[in-house]
Amino acid sequence: MRIDCLQYANWSERIFRQMREGNVDAVHVTIAYHENFRETVLNFEQWNRWFEQYPDLLQKALTAQDIDSARAAGRTAIFFGFQNPSPIEHDIDLIEIVHTLGARFMQLTYNNQSLLATGCYEAEDAGITRMGKQVIKEMNRVGLVVDMSHSADRSTIEACEISERPIAVTHANPHTWSPALRNKKDKVLDALFQHGGMLGFSLYPHHLKDKSQCSLQSFCEMIARTADKYGVQHLGIGSDLCQDQPDSVVEWMRVGRWTKEIDYGEGSASESGFPPMPEWFRDNRDFGNIQAGLLAIGMSESEVAAVMGGNWYRFFDENFVPDKSLF
Amino acid sequence: MRIDCLQYANWSERIFRQMREGNVDAVHVTIAYHENFRETVLNFEQWNRWFEQYPDLLQKALTAQDIDSARAAGRTAIFFGFQNPSPIEHDIDLIEIVHTLGARFMQLTYNNQSLLATGCYEAEDAGITRMGKQVIKEMNRVGLVVDMSHSADRSTIEACEISERPIAVTHANPHTWSPALRNKKDKVLDALFQHGGMLGFSLYPHHLKDKSQCSLQSFCEMIARTADKYGVQHLGIGSDLCQDQPDSVVEWMRVGRWTKEIDYGEGSASESGFPPMPEWFRDNRDFGNIQAGLLAIGMSESEVAAVMGGNWYRFFDENFVPDKSLF
Repeated sequence: MRIDCLQYANWSERIFRQMREGNVDAVHVTIAYHENFRETVLNFEQWNRWFEQYPDLLQKALTAQDIDSARAAGRTAIFFGFQNPSPIEHDIDLIEIVHTLGARFMQLTYNNQSLLATGCYEAEDAGITRMGKQVIKEMNRVGLVVDMSHSADRSTIEACEISERPIAVTHANPHTWSPALRNKKDKVLDALFQHGGMLGFSLYPHHLKDKSQCSLQSFCEMIARTADKYGVQHLGIGSDLCQDQPDSVVEWMRVGRWTKEIDYGEGSASESGFPPMPEWFRDNRDFGNIQAGLLAIGMSESEVAAVMGGNWYRFFDENFVPDKSLF
Repeated sequence: MRIDCLQYANWSERIFRQMREGNVDAVHVTIAYHENFRETVLNFEQWNRWFEQYPDLLQKALTAQDIDSARAAGRTAIFFGFQNPSPIEHDIDLIEIVHTLGARFMQLTYNNQSLLATGCYEAEDAGITRMGKQVIKEMNRVGLVVDMSHSADRSTIEACEISERPIAVTHANPHTWSPALRNKKDKVLDALFQHGGMLGFSLYPHHLKDKSQCSLQSFCEMIARTADKYGVQHLGIGSDLCQDQPDSVVEWMRVGRWTKEIDYGEGSASESGFPPMPEWFRDNRDFGNIQAGLLAIGMSESEVAAVMGGNWYRFFDENFVPDKSLF
């Protein structure tokens, strides 16, 4: 089973067909960076059109069991998530609404301070806010997973502790391997895994050692070392594939509507666009390279199967449904 | 001249007539606590109806000069403000839009962490955020005054320092007089006044020494002591009058949509509603009591005139117009 727990592509029939060619059973797709509720609904609407147009390729997915039915039908199961809490605006009751519409992950922050927590680009991190504590409780209740991929250290650790259900870092790598601001320090991974959380390894070049020149072997060895240290059951893939996006989109991701100035995020004035992907992971057809790479460095068949999709399947199965004890 | 720099009444013709009876020349009225942009526009619409219905009592006001024309016509000039940045949602370009619509004050926070700064009820205060710095710059540019009445200490001090135009605390009292969480400590007042900011003294009982039993003399002596310490030019009235509001409204103010639990704010489970006003300040007809009280404790006619409205007039005149150097 192959599950990719983060993509934000410029979607097209070509990409949907590449998912099938790559035997990708399920993808968590981002449908909001800075969108408000109404704009996010437009993005749900767009996906409903695609599900209608490409019934042989795609299937809307709400539970882990939907992956099984998608596999049986030869389709890719599409799950939805937000990289920012902007879709719930200032309204805690929108959490159940977006879950009903299909959202299954929501980041508490995207780089900046949010109403809920602190993002990884702020100078100061005061942890989970008053509203943040209320929102985590409500997300736990309805089955919307807390994602701290773009959050600052203290906020991430506190989210692990406050959340009564496991949280996720859907797309990041260990900071010890590549000290990017977005990668996670040991103390953060400790808290994440101690509370049953999942880490999705990112293929976004700014998160890779040697960036676009990162070798497949280095990437796979990093995964194996993380498995040795914490146990393979917490690990999956969250490629952060932004295929076919124009550079205007990475500017939108970084700048949104919060500033009138340019913010280069992980890039710079001279390298402001999307970085080129490593040659061994260009698109959805290349998941086989990672699978082969993990086997080549000595991970077992069962360990590799867990990383390539088995662990996310279990996590989805446990965390996308409402907590019946809380209803 | 009498200017009240904060009211949130359950507006009615009766209250508009009381403003005239009390010779109130201008009032800054709150039109958003937790409203989003569209909801705030509805509140602007409601006021347009009242301006149409009561042209003999009210006048929409955008500049200090509108107070002069309102006085000449025997009307009360109405200025608008927000106690929360929720009306600008996640969109910095909404700042110019709300200024065009008539907003002249915007609090960066209301008790909780916002996208911009920290509220006074949070356990931790990390100061002005990345977006907050951008928003202050834009507010300075268009002439929307930063109001930190409900903000935490560090955030308030940083706002004083970052803002290139003076800021306001429209409704609060010195913490040394009454140590309420909402009242301002000396270090905050130091920063506020050093940067040319204004303080509006609040009549809301939770901000008063002895609350509803506060004496007029104690209130006036507090004003006189503050004038002695910092200079009378920084001081005005921001009564925080919430006349005729049902207790459901104080619950809305405290709880908004950020929590599914009850938050009692400055109240408590046993005293959850609006506290009774002091007998010497029940409504807009009682500003004369304050004026007389200030004279009775020995402030001069000119000092009292400054506190009752002259200082706010000057502040409005300097800060409600765009900074031409920034356009």
